[in-house]
This record gives sequence, C-alpha cells and structure tokens, in this order.
Amino acid sequence: MAPLDAYRELVERTRKIATLQSCAELLGWEERTTMPRGGAGHRAAQLGLLAGLAHQWLVDPRMGSLLAALEDSPLTADPAGVEAANLREIRRRHQRATRLPQALVEEIAQTTSLAQGEWQEARRRAEVKRFLPWLEKIVGLVRRVAGHIGYDGEPYDALLDEYEPGATTAEVARIFDALRPELVALNRKIASAPRKPDAAIVQRAFDPERQKIFGEMVAAAMGFDFARGRLDVTTHPFCAGIGPGDTRITTRYNPRRLNDALFGIMHEAGHALYEMGLDKATHFGTPLGEAASLGIHESQSRLWENQVGRSRAFWAYFYPQAQRIFREALADVSLEDFYGAVNHSAPSLIRVEADEATYNLHIMLRFELERALVKGDLAPADIPEEWNRRFRDYLGIEVPDDARGCLQDIHWSSGGIGYFPTYTLGNLYAAQFFDQARRDLLDLDRELEQGRMSGLREWLREKIHRHGSRYPAGELVRRVTGAPLSPQPLVSYLNRKFGGIYGF
Amino acid sequence: MAPLDAYRELVERTRKIATLQSCAELLGWEERTTMPRGGAGHRAAQLGLLAGLAHQWLVDPRMGSLLAALEDSPLTADPAGVEAANLREIRRRHQRATRLPQALVEEIAQTTSLAQGEWQEARRRAEVKRFLPWLEKIVGLVRRVAGHIGYDGEPYDALLDEYEPGATTAEVARIFDALRPELVALNRKIASAPRKPDAAIVQRAFDPERQKIFGEMVAAAMGFDFARGRLDVTTHPFCAGIGPGDTRITTRYNPRRLNDALFGIMHEAGHALYEMGLDKATHFGTPLGEAASLGIHESQSRLWENQVGRSRAFWAYFYPQAQRIFREALADVSLEDFYGAVNHSAPSLIRVEADEATYNLHIMLRFELERALVKGDLAPADIPEEWNRRFRDYLGIEVPDDARGCLQDIHWSSGGIGYFPTYTLGNLYAAQFFDQARRDLLDLDRELEQGRMSGLREWLREKIHRHGSRYPAGELVRRVTGAPLSPQPLVSYLNRKFGGIYGF
Repeated sequence: MAPLDAYRELVERTRKIATLQSCAELLGWEERTTMPRGGAGHRAAQLGLLAGLAHQWLVDPRMGSLLAALEDSPLTADPAGVEAANLREIRRRHQRATRLPQALVEEIAQTTSLAQGEWQEARRRAEVKRFLPWLEKIVGLVRRVAGHIGYDGEPYDALLDEYEPGATTAEVARIFDALRPELVALNRKIASAPRKPDAAIVQRAFDPERQKIFGEMVAAAMGFDFARGRLDVTTHPFCAGIGPGDTRITTRYNPRRLNDALFGIMHEAGHALYEMGLDKATHFGTPLGEAASLGIHESQSRLWENQVGRSRAFWAYFYPQAQRIFREALADVSLEDFYGAVNHSAPSLIRVEADEATYNLHIMLRFELERALVKGDLAPADIPEEWNRRFRDYLGIEVPDDARGCLQDIHWSSGGIGYFPTYTLGNLYAAQFFDQARRDLLDLDRELEQGRMSGLREWLREKIHRHGSRYPAGELVRRVTGAPLSPQPLVSYLNRKFGGIYGF
Repeated sequence: MAPLDAYRELVERTRKIATLQSCAELLGWEERTTMPRGGAGHRAAQLGLLAGLAHQWLVDPRMGSLLAALEDSPLTADPAGVEAANLREIRRRHQRATRLPQALVEEIAQTTSLAQGEWQEARRRAEVKRFLPWLEKIVGLVRRVAGHIGYDGEPYDALLDEYEPGATTAEVARIFDALRPELVALNRKIASAPRKPDAAIVQRAFDPERQKIFGEMVAAAMGFDFARGRLDVTTHPFCAGIGPGDTRITTRYNPRRLNDALFGIMHEAGHALYEMGLDKATHFGTPLGEAASLGIHESQSRLWENQVGRSRAFWAYFYPQAQRIFREALADVSLEDFYGAVNHSAPSLIRVEADEATYNLHIMLRFELERALVKGDLAPADIPEEWNRRFRDYLGIEVPDDARGCLQDIHWSSGGIGYFPTYTLGNLYAAQFFDQARRDLLDLDRELEQGRMSGLREWLREKIHRHGSRYPAGELVRRVTGAPLSPQPLVSYLNRKFGGIYGF
C-alpha cells in the first residue's frame, strides 16, 4: 500500500473514532449538567457502548497494519511535520489501547459512570463509607490497566502517561521535591507577614445572577465565543470540547464568595480558548487538532486564572466595572484592597478554592496518595485517615469531614488516577509561558490595564494552541521558552507577587 | 443453531442498536434545547455517523440468518408471546431496511437535509416555488422507497407501514370517509350556534414563569416523574424517550396564550407517560419495550391533552389553582367561562393550533394530497392550488399565503410522507380508549374532579403501556375496547362536548 493511501485511511479512521468519542463527550457533559437522576443507569450503558466501540476501532488490526505500512516512510522524514506528529500520537494511542482488553475498558466505563453518582451522594452526605467500595473497585481497575500497559519505573508511570504523554513519575517527583521546600518557605513568610489583605471583602453578598453576568463579560473579553460555546452550572466545574464550533464550560456560584465562580470561569475559559484555538477546521479528530497534554491544557487555564485574573493590571480595567455591578459589596473598597483580597492566601480545605501559594500542596498530597494506592502501599480503606494526617502536616489544618477532605474531587470516582500531577505541571508551564509572553509582548501589562487581552490570546494561539499535539509537551515548552520545564519561574512569580501584597 | 441461542443473540444485537440510537436521541434532544449555534455542523457529522452505524447493524446479514433460524420455531408458537411479538417486529424492521438500497437511503438523507433548509427559507418568505422542486424530488424518492418495500394495495401502504405498522391506506381512507361528513356537520353546528365562548379570556397576559410552574404542577399530578425526566423549552415541542429512567418533554411559552404551553405540556406528558409506562426494565431495546405505533403514541398524548385537559371535570379541580397562580388574568372569570374559552372552536389556518372540532380536517386534507402525490395522480407543482381549494371546501376559509398553507409543516421536507394519518388515528384511538376507561373506571369523572389522575394513568399502563409492541395497533384496540377502531366514539364525544358548550 502506498504510504499516502495508508496515511489517508489512518486519518479517516482516527477521525471516525474522534467523532464517536465526541458523542460520548456530549453525553458526559449532559450527564453532569441536565440529565435527570433516573437516567444514570442507562447513561452508563450508553457510555459503555460508545467507549467499547471506540476502543474496538482503535485496536482494529487494520490500524496496526496501516501504522506498520507507514513505519520509516518518507512521510515521516520531518519529525515535526504534520504526518509524523499525527503518526507518533496515533501509534501511542493504538499501542496503549491494544494492550487493554475490551472487557476491562467496558468495565471501567460502566463502573466509573455509576461511581460518579455514588460519589456525589457520598459527598452530599459526607459519608465516605458509601464511596470506599467504589474507590476500591476503581483502584483495582487502574492497577489492572497499569499491568496491561506496562511501565519502566513504577505502575503509576503507565497511568500518568495517559494524561501527560512522555512524563515519568520519577521526573514529576523530582520537580515536586524541588518545589515543595520553596512553597513551604513562601507559606511561612505569608503566615508571619507584617501586612495582611482583608479576605472578607470578597466574602460579602454577591448576587449569583450578577456573578454570572460579570463572569460572562470577562469570558467574552478573553475571547470566549458564546455562539460556539456555553456556560452552565455544575457541582464540579469543567470544560468540554465537544467538537469544532462547540466548546462548553461550567462553574458554580457561591452567593458569599466572589472568587469561586469568577476565577473558576476564567480558568475554564482558559481551557476553552485552547480548544477554540486548535486548528480543528483542518485537523479535527487527529492529534494535530488536539491538546498536547493535560498539563499544557492546565497551563492555559491557570495562566488566565492566575497570571491574568489575579493580576493588578487586569483589575485596573475590570475593578471599576465590578464596582458598578456589585455596588453594595464593593462601594467602599479600594482597588488595592480588592487586589489584596482576591489574592489573600491561607491554608484552606478545598483544592479548587485554594490560592496560588497553597494550591500545589493540595496536588502533591494527592499525587503521593495516588502513587501509594497504585503501588499497593496504601489500602483504599485507609485513604480518609491518611488524607487527614497529611493535610495536617502540609497545610497545618484539621479536616472537619470527608466531604471537605478526600471526597471533594470527582477524579477518583471517574477513574482519573494519574491526572492530578498535571495540575501542578500546568502551574509550572503557565509561569514559564507567561514569563516568555512578557518578554515577547513588551506592552502586555499596559494592554491588560486597558482590558485588551487579544494580544496575549493571539500569542498563546500562535505559540501553543495552533500546534495541537505537533510537539510533545516537554518539547513545546523548550520551543516556546527556549528552556526545559523548571520550577524557578513559578517560584519567582509567587515570591514577587506575594512579597508585594504581604510586604516581605 | 438452537432457537433459544439465536433468539438471545438477536435480542442482544437489537438492544445494542437501540442503545446506539438512544445516543442519537440524546444528541437530537440537545441540539434542539441547549446546543450553541456553532455546533450544528459537527452535530450533523455525529448524527450521520450514529445513523449509518445503526443502519449497518440492522442490515447485517447475521441478523437475517438469526431471523431465518427462528422461522417456524417453537418459540413463536404463541403469536402474542414475548418472543413471537419481538420477532415479528424485528423481522419487519430488518426487511424494510434490507429492501432499501444503501444509495437510496443516502440520497434520502442528503436530499431531506438540504430540503429542510430550503423549506424553512421558503416558509419564511412564503415562496412556495422555491420549495416545489424539492417536494418533487422527495415525492420521487418516497415513490422509489414504496417500490422497493413493496405493497399489496397501493404505494402509499408501504410508507404508512413505517409509522403505523399493519395499517392500510384503504382502511384509513374508509375511516376518514366516515368521519368527514360528521365533522363537517359538527362544524356547521358550531358556526351557527346560539352560544359562543369568549376565547379572549385565555389570550390575556400569562407570565411564562408562572405558566411553567402551573404546567409542571399539572404534569406532576398526571404522574410525570421529574426525577426520571425533564421539561425544557424548544421552538417545536416534542417528547424524547432517551432510555429507561430518562424521558424528556419540551414546550414553548406564549405570554399572551395560556392554551399553547399548558395543553402542549399535557400532550407531551401524555407521550411521556407512555414511555415511562413501557416495561423498559425488562424489554428496553426490543419491540416489547417500545410503542406499538405512532398512532397509539399519539392517542396517549391526545387523551391527556383533550379528553382530560379540556374536560370540565379536570378544571373543577385545577381551575381554582389556576386562578390563584394567574390572579390578575383570571380573577373575574367563572369556571364555566374558562372551560368554554379553552374549548373555543373556529376554523383556523395552522394545524398545530387547531381545536378538537377542526383538527382532523387538517389531517384529512394532507392525507388525501399525499396519497394522490404518491399514486402519481397529483403533480407536486399543483399542491399549492389543490391545498387552497380543499382548505376552502373543508374549513371554509381562504389561505392568505403558502407559509400558512402547504408550507406550514416540516413533514414533507423531512421525507415524512405517510406520517400525517397517525395524528387522526391517534385522536380516534384516544376517544375509543377513553370511552372504555369510563366504562371500566366508574368514578372517573369524580376522580378527575378531585385531581386524582392515578386511576386513569394506571388503567392506561395496564391496558396499553406495559404491552409495548406485543400487539399490532389494530389488535390492541380490539383487546382493550372489545371492538375494532371506529369513528363513532370520537364523533359522539365531540358532539356531546361541543353541543354542551355551544348549546346545540
């Protein structure tokens, strides 16, 4: 078979799989936004069928033959060319999938669909016992996955590779180990700082309807296109790229906390801008039209949420608008006090509400627990106690109940073990990318002060979004910033910023 | 192969097709409720993939072998047994699908996809000429379908059978011919009646938010389970049975018309009660867990909308509640005047807004035109003139433009020729079923007067819902009412009801 014909057929099959998976993506979005409770059982059956079918198509021996026919073909001469990059990623997925038995894939889809309902109920009632049997099932399933996939270092590698292709557990642990003492030192300085912003300012009464309108204004200014997307309410906020022209985000509104929905929306809109910036018109359904990794995806959300949304420059433009919309809450608050309040840092219970200085400690704790679960060094039944013990160690506070402890995140119930480290990788990438953007865009602060975010958005599109998976995450970072991933940009950024606010 | 094994495999394949189709059903629901505009192109690709796949599975030669293996097997000894009934229906679907060449199926999908856009535009501009070439194409296509499917009587039989399995054109024509003079006489009596209700009462200001709350109260009282369903807003109301535990309905609110959303909700909730009453726990994905026909489905919606929702007994209970919710609009209106207003009858242009006395004339006109088109006795180009001529004859009013004439319905542009008669069959079934319910449930009127609808709902579930497609529609009617379908129950019901309101 001529290489070009083989490549065309391979792409056609890959697109078909992606289209089928996008049906599952929509069903998943709908399950979390509007599905009536009673539909949970059948939704699990639907998702099981689609996942099984996609898996079946991905492991089709014909895919293997096509990939083999393209081995060492002239099409792959340029390793960063469209064809070579697509082949690299399609081959990786085909190989992962062929190693997993069909029955295991279907069992995971069905179990996690049901487990998510049980998790929600367990969290609502703060009854961890209700969820532990499901966690045990899921840990058992992902350990089987790791066994089938195989790994060089430890079983967690096989899971991490699903979310951050090419990253290893050891590498992540090394970066986290370098970051941890810096964060501990930073948090000590914050705790004993001479100045403290008044967090109560953003814990006044903020009408959810007005929060929604303000959040939509900010998202629109960022470039989120509401004709090609939606913003809905869910317990656990997320972004779903359904397909070309259809990218959804969700949030949740707390009438006594401005930060949650506002920065949540900026976070998810950051993910959405990446999805909207991928070249789906040409490359939908192939790796070139898809994100490089979850860590890179997270860098886009965190950059908009933190480097932009929690900056003084951003609020120079948006704070007067916020004051007009939240008249009663903010009338007597200066820009400087507001900027301090949105950046108030203190150890807290909930990851998604954590500030920039403490956030990564939440991730490290999860990474360590997951790693131990997967290794078999920790029993799922011991998770609540172990969670609470480490939480006390790292953040110095007591966990009052499991709903605000080990039950707070959806990830484990959805089978996403190996996913958490990508959040901290995302924070590291974001700081390193933003440093570079600042060098490339000389007027960036002035633009943000004037509410103009298109310069930054187009820089991200040009440097990151449009490439999709053309480069592995590590190589993308080197290409964009000229250096490998390092904890230094994040550490410097956090010290500079919190030093300014807290006066150390 | 042992018959039982063949049967089990056949059922498993049929369920898998149904589960896949239920994904498409959800995608279709979402397209009409919440999808952002930009997602339309990709949604078409998703639906195309799922439809093609379901068709491919249905015509799989293995399905034919399994059906052949079960021919004359002991499993089918009892023709009303689960297995025989499932086989009858699965065989019918498989045969229909395999008789149609793939190329014709694709041509229909493409042509009707384009034709719907052209129809919308033609209707918007009231330019029928724009749509006529498409109607000609579609009539040509469905005539080819009829040729491939085959028929005993006339080609229209092959189309009707898609929507109302087992019904024949001659039979429908005979019933319609008996009904027509009765309806003409009834409408003449209404036109020259001594009393006339005041329709303006239900055309006052009705806050949509309150319409929604009242509609939900009524649907809940009917037995619509909001934990196993939803009510949303769409331009064209519909009911979608996604799967076990998940049945959705939609409506639209007109702030100056109480009838539209209220009876629309009761109509769709009637469809939904049928879906919720099917034995999906045991039979989901097989004909035994699915509606007997579109006519039977429509009988459930019309019975709740008309026999219940437009009855004096129903309003004896609900009118005081309506008065408390719509205080300003209804404060000065008596129950008697309100009952008259919701039943006000007059010839009108639009089918979906027609009252009970005129509705079936709209259907007969369409049936006659369709039948002539498919026979070849009427050229598509002559439709506008012929439509207007008959409309004058049957309803006594002039059609001012084709947008309110032959362009008003989506059915022809979507290829749904043969569908319309099921609406009047539904009205006939509804009247005959309700007569029987009245005989079986001696206190029905008193129960409705007290807002108790569970007796009627359980009667419908027991007599109709739980049987799914076990009996063909005609046989189901005979089993439930002891008599074949007859126009008499509807004619008597309409004369009694409108005689009371209009004083003849």
